[in-house]
Amino acid sequence: MKSYRKLSKEELTALKNELEHQYVDAKGKGLQLNMARGKPSVAQLDMTMDIMDTFNSNSILKTEAGDDCRNYGVMEGIPEARKLMGDLMGVASENVIVCGNASLSIMYDTVSRSMTHGVLGSTPWCKLEKVKFLCPVPGYDRHFAITEHFGIEMINIPMSESGPDMDMVEELVNKDASVKGIWCVPKYSNPQGVSYSDDTVKRFAGLKPAAADFRIFWDNAYIAHHLYEDKQTEILEILGECAKRGNEDMVYEFCSTSKISFAGAGIAAIASSKANLAEMKKSMTIQTIGYDKINQLRHVQYFKNVDGIRAQMKKQADILRPKFEAVLNVLEEDLTGLEIGTWVKPIGGYFIAFDSMEGCAKSIVAKCKEAGVTLTGAGATYPYKKDPNDSSIRIAPSFPTPEEMKEATDIFVLCVKLASVEKLLTECK
Amino acid sequence: MKSYRKLSKEELTALKNELEHQYVDAKGKGLQLNMARGKPSVAQLDMTMDIMDTFNSNSILKTEAGDDCRNYGVMEGIPEARKLMGDLMGVASENVIVCGNASLSIMYDTVSRSMTHGVLGSTPWCKLEKVKFLCPVPGYDRHFAITEHFGIEMINIPMSESGPDMDMVEELVNKDASVKGIWCVPKYSNPQGVSYSDDTVKRFAGLKPAAADFRIFWDNAYIAHHLYEDKQTEILEILGECAKRGNEDMVYEFCSTSKISFAGAGIAAIASSKANLAEMKKSMTIQTIGYDKINQLRHVQYFKNVDGIRAQMKKQADILRPKFEAVLNVLEEDLTGLEIGTWVKPIGGYFIAFDSMEGCAKSIVAKCKEAGVTLTGAGATYPYKKDPNDSSIRIAPSFPTPEEMKEATDIFVLCVKLASVEKLLTECK
Repeated sequence: MKSYRKLSKEELTALKNELEHQYVDAKGKGLQLNMARGKPSVAQLDMTMDIMDTFNSNSILKTEAGDDCRNYGVMEGIPEARKLMGDLMGVASENVIVCGNASLSIMYDTVSRSMTHGVLGSTPWCKLEKVKFLCPVPGYDRHFAITEHFGIEMINIPMSESGPDMDMVEELVNKDASVKGIWCVPKYSNPQGVSYSDDTVKRFAGLKPAAADFRIFWDNAYIAHHLYEDKQTEILEILGECAKRGNEDMVYEFCSTSKISFAGAGIAAIASSKANLAEMKKSMTIQTIGYDKINQLRHVQYFKNVDGIRAQMKKQADILRPKFEAVLNVLEEDLTGLEIGTWVKPIGGYFIAFDSMEGCAKSIVAKCKEAGVTLTGAGATYPYKKDPNDSSIRIAPSFPTPEEMKEATDIFVLCVKLASVEKLLTECK
Repeated sequence: MKSYRKLSKEELTALKNELEHQYVDAKGKGLQLNMARGKPSVAQLDMTMDIMDTFNSNSILKTEAGDDCRNYGVMEGIPEARKLMGDLMGVASENVIVCGNASLSIMYDTVSRSMTHGVLGSTPWCKLEKVKFLCPVPGYDRHFAITEHFGIEMINIPMSESGPDMDMVEELVNKDASVKGIWCVPKYSNPQGVSYSDDTVKRFAGLKPAAADFRIFWDNAYIAHHLYEDKQTEILEILGECAKRGNEDMVYEFCSTSKISFAGAGIAAIASSKANLAEMKKSMTIQTIGYDKINQLRHVQYFKNVDGIRAQMKKQADILRPKFEAVLNVLEEDLTGLEIGTWVKPIGGYFIAFDSMEGCAKSIVAKCKEAGVTLTGAGATYPYKKDPNDSSIRIAPSFPTPEEMKEATDIFVLCVKLASVEKLLTECK
């Protein structure tokens, strides 16, 4: 296909007219499709329904250590759940605390605790003039929402195919003591599906932070979320890499079964050094009477071990893959060569990241919306919802069917074309 | 029985010798009994095991509004759970948010949010020179732990049989703008089993706080926890009383099913004004992807309605009552007339509060411990664990059997006697 960038003003005008007709037709279809959030589909959730048979009124709800899961206590999570989540993350049980149903809450609580109580004896962040977090972009909107909520200044760090720009990360972390954290989704990142290279992980582990209370927030949300059996990425285990370099307290790793069992009723965990976990437990003892141990035991008995999780994820991939491919096929067929957008072809995770021409993302999302296709808001993947180039769009293919995804992507590419032509025409003036 | 206070030095010395022999015998029994925490017993937990049959792999896990409980969303809790917990508290669903398994976490999060973000636009408490909370004493140690954790100054408020000393509460709340909250357990209080009189509730509702961000933390933990069918207390509904007086934003009410279904895996709720809940939801949207809705639905389908909860609590009372009575009988038989201790005879809740002679509580608890009977630490029911009179002891009869409770109380009264005699002898010198 001929690049839009090589079209004359007349050609662009004619094309715009043609696209506008198509857009009117598209709107006429009255579609109602949502590609906005990374929600598991009903078919994925149905796959885990057997977990509801795990217990009945005759079940013995005791941990292997003999504690009654129905009663108070066992703050750090039941031993077998700590092992399961530890095995998933590749760390020892003793480095794991299993909490409630949302890793987001553990992240929030961790930032909140740092604000009010500091980190391992440091000044509480709320007492400091300035606290900064580094934010690889595009990234996960809810990470940025936490730091914004606490008035933490966010600094964009560009992403490449091997992870965040580590020159910039090292420069900022090692020199600026007000930099207290960085948000990372190291595997099948949200939204690009990028996995950090071994070199990137090693450079993270080797940081020499100016601030003793600097922490890496390592959100391993897509740890087992491969789309292909024969194309899988494994990243280096960060706790071990940090420990090797004498940096064992520098990282908090998070993961959950939200996209393994149930998005609303899974279990979530944090992995970190013993010192960090001991500090966390001090607050937890005050914050809660313990998390839901019955649900922890339910998960352990259902999945049995990490292979059980992997088997489940293989079945989930069979549901997700066609949806991703439906989107990618349309993008490839309709946009290749037009020079109006680029995208990463992910092999895991929950998203496809699309980069439009500069200044077009908002217009594309708005046009899609008008035609009944809801996308994540343009800019949402940037701190303060401000995408400096207005070009990043996140597509979440998990919830609709493959057919709906194709239909939605047809609308999407039409809107990309239309917005791009409009933009190119403006530039002709 | 003759009052110990009327005994001569010689009589006391002889008595001490006799009691010491008994104590040696008691220690020889090698008992291992725990009356320290208000944990439901295995029999109580067994009673709710049918809840595990509520769902199986064929269940439809949708709310009445059609939302899938297995997926993300419905931040404020599912409508039917909001109704159930609202009915329990006597407030409308719209005034209720249902969260995870611990009301303690809602309280902690509420204080934490006030620290970092203030209350309905007020200055964040962490930015203030001084923040104070009023603490009716004796009270719940975990309440005091939260305020201590955040560096909030705690002021003791004496309790009477009708609730906290309201003259003192009014004086402090209405005149001192640094007083931002008060911890209340208004019904079958922890540890005294006292219920606030109508007059007390009305005076609470009619407070005219110097601080606009003053809030009553109304922990209705024992809302349905009657011990007797024919002797039950009902307190006035606080939200309504506050609203009548134009004070609708002044109260947060908390309750949970921790001591109704499972202590480790129940559901918890907050009731408050729409403005307060809206503010809370703003933070929750950032803190979590929603609480465990499957467990909320499980509870609703199991209990069906508030009458289902009441029926369950009647059965639980049948288990708890003999334990309370075992303790009270021993206290009455062995201590009446000795003038070395007083106690309240509760008709609900989870505790019996015992007041020893001044300066004896620590000694009694230590002696019990040595004889294999673990009590809540002396002073634990006071802010900073400091009981100014060293006289308050909390007895938690729920976990052991009635027979064990009798045995433990036998040891307890022996230790009370011994500590009292030792004290009286010191005073003879």
